[in-house]
Amino acid sequence: MPDAPILLKSLRSHFLGGREAMASGLPVLRRQVVGNGAARAIDMNGSYCAGQLYVQEYRLAEPRHPHPVLLWHGGGMSGAQWESTPDGRQGWLWRLLQSGYDVFVADAPERGRASWAMYPQIYDAAPIFRSKEEAWHLFRIGPANGYAPRGQPRRAHPGQQFPADAFDTFAKQFVPRWLAHDAMALDAYRQLLDLAGPCIVIGHSQGGGYATQLARECPGPIRAVVAVEPTGTPERVDGSLPPQLLVWGDHFDHHDTWQRYRAQTDAYWDALRRAGRRADVLDLPAAGIAGNSHFCMLDRNSDRIAELIVDWLNGLD
Amino acid sequence: MPDAPILLKSLRSHFLGGREAMASGLPVLRRQVVGNGAARAIDMNGSYCAGQLYVQEYRLAEPRHPHPVLLWHGGGMSGAQWESTPDGRQGWLWRLLQSGYDVFVADAPERGRASWAMYPQIYDAAPIFRSKEEAWHLFRIGPANGYAPRGQPRRAHPGQQFPADAFDTFAKQFVPRWLAHDAMALDAYRQLLDLAGPCIVIGHSQGGGYATQLARECPGPIRAVVAVEPTGTPERVDGSLPPQLLVWGDHFDHHDTWQRYRAQTDAYWDALRRAGRRADVLDLPAAGIAGNSHFCMLDRNSDRIAELIVDWLNGLD
Repeated sequence: MPDAPILLKSLRSHFLGGREAMASGLPVLRRQVVGNGAARAIDMNGSYCAGQLYVQEYRLAEPRHPHPVLLWHGGGMSGAQWESTPDGRQGWLWRLLQSGYDVFVADAPERGRASWAMYPQIYDAAPIFRSKEEAWHLFRIGPANGYAPRGQPRRAHPGQQFPADAFDTFAKQFVPRWLAHDAMALDAYRQLLDLAGPCIVIGHSQGGGYATQLARECPGPIRAVVAVEPTGTPERVDGSLPPQLLVWGDHFDHHDTWQRYRAQTDAYWDALRRAGRRADVLDLPAAGIAGNSHFCMLDRNSDRIAELIVDWLNGLD
Repeated sequence: MPDAPILLKSLRSHFLGGREAMASGLPVLRRQVVGNGAARAIDMNGSYCAGQLYVQEYRLAEPRHPHPVLLWHGGGMSGAQWESTPDGRQGWLWRLLQSGYDVFVADAPERGRASWAMYPQIYDAAPIFRSKEEAWHLFRIGPANGYAPRGQPRRAHPGQQFPADAFDTFAKQFVPRWLAHDAMALDAYRQLLDLAGPCIVIGHSQGGGYATQLARECPGPIRAVVAVEPTGTPERVDGSLPPQLLVWGDHFDHHDTWQRYRAQTDAYWDALRRAGRRADVLDLPAAGIAGNSHFCMLDRNSDRIAELIVDWLNGLD
């Protein structure tokens, strides 16, 4: 994929879904809001929207495929993960546009530009935050004891494809997440499917799990799924299902949490195949591509993996 | 400005600035993170980045101006306010690209994809949230007693240009804000100026105030400022300053808070002119354009106002 320019017909964003919510019983504050202005009253009692989704819609002047690609980020992340790599290269958004696909980039409810709601008045609980220490290990960049504070040498897994020198920049894009809000996210993604119509979904991690769940529930709009290291995939094959591609990186050895997550998804993929559904697997190490982290769209070989995925999609036409 | 397509050379995003922060003393939780997975340990003690800024960089294949435009949103908002209007039209991002400018769209620290940090461990306080009731009045869409719950008739100011029928969609893009974090935001915007180099800043409300402050402090990179209904402008003229355009909408009557904010900025603009600096004013009602809210980039006549601003910028070349 040479770095050719992109001719866009339009670029829009949308806020979809969510529910009306009320906050009441809060004290009215008096605070200085504007730097050198006088204090004013701040009354947060009132009406809000909670649970909406944000999505950017990039439309090409001359798309070469009938269906747009929807990019669904992972847990604790936002749509920014598809735009650029931490070491400053173009991300999969650009590669898909170059490949002739219209693209939608979502921020799921609570994440990024989708915003979040106050707790405990509207959301019932506080969010959880991902430390750099956890990310280093959980994203399979290096062993738990390989993390060190910024500026000190860190130990990554051998042959690591993640640009570990840019790990501190990468960590700037982590966003808080709430547990037990899956139903809210799925509701909003259903609204996105209504907006987008027939489409391909590329989902990563939590977003890959959502893609496999909604492909099972509403196979009409979803014509293909690429699940990149998904979590929370369905437990049972059901209904008509679109073709699905599963992508796994490297460094699963000695990682109990990931071995459990992977076993669950591999079992679903096996069941899909036994039931005669198209369920392909791109196991990168098995394909001779070693060293990928949990974030192959940010790894140094991200362009090569994008090509493999685009080849698979083009093979469906 | 006809709806011509845009030829992009690149589209990237960046996370800039921020400081290292530590959280400690938090209990380790055991929670189910993946929908149908087993509980795992969640240890939030560790290292974080706090105060970073997110920015999207849209580069044209053939820009027609030497300097990019930086779009700085208002308080409690994100860069989404420049992308689309609540009634679904193209926003100023698209209009500026069509006018031949490269464009940077920022999410200031704590807002949107820039993420936010836990409190009270890293940030010292809780954020404030903007209710729909407050927004209806504070954004000068209608009188305070003109707001009504969703689905019931609301009363806007006469001749209102804001697409009031889409107010509930608009409210989905409100994000929480922290007070007393101006220094953090300004630090991050300085990093953005380092990245962008010589540029034009179009800032709205709080972002317009930041633009006027940084134009005073670092006039080198900032070659022009368009301050759309800015708040928190400087109190004193100082140093060499680039040309600045101030834009005011309508419906200031009977709005005490806005009359105070406006008086402060008008006094600064008067001082700029007395000191021989170029400080122009586009008072929309005085120019025969009636009815604009605090968000003229989202109002029904947003394209017309974009044209006036582009004309002013082109007059500087």
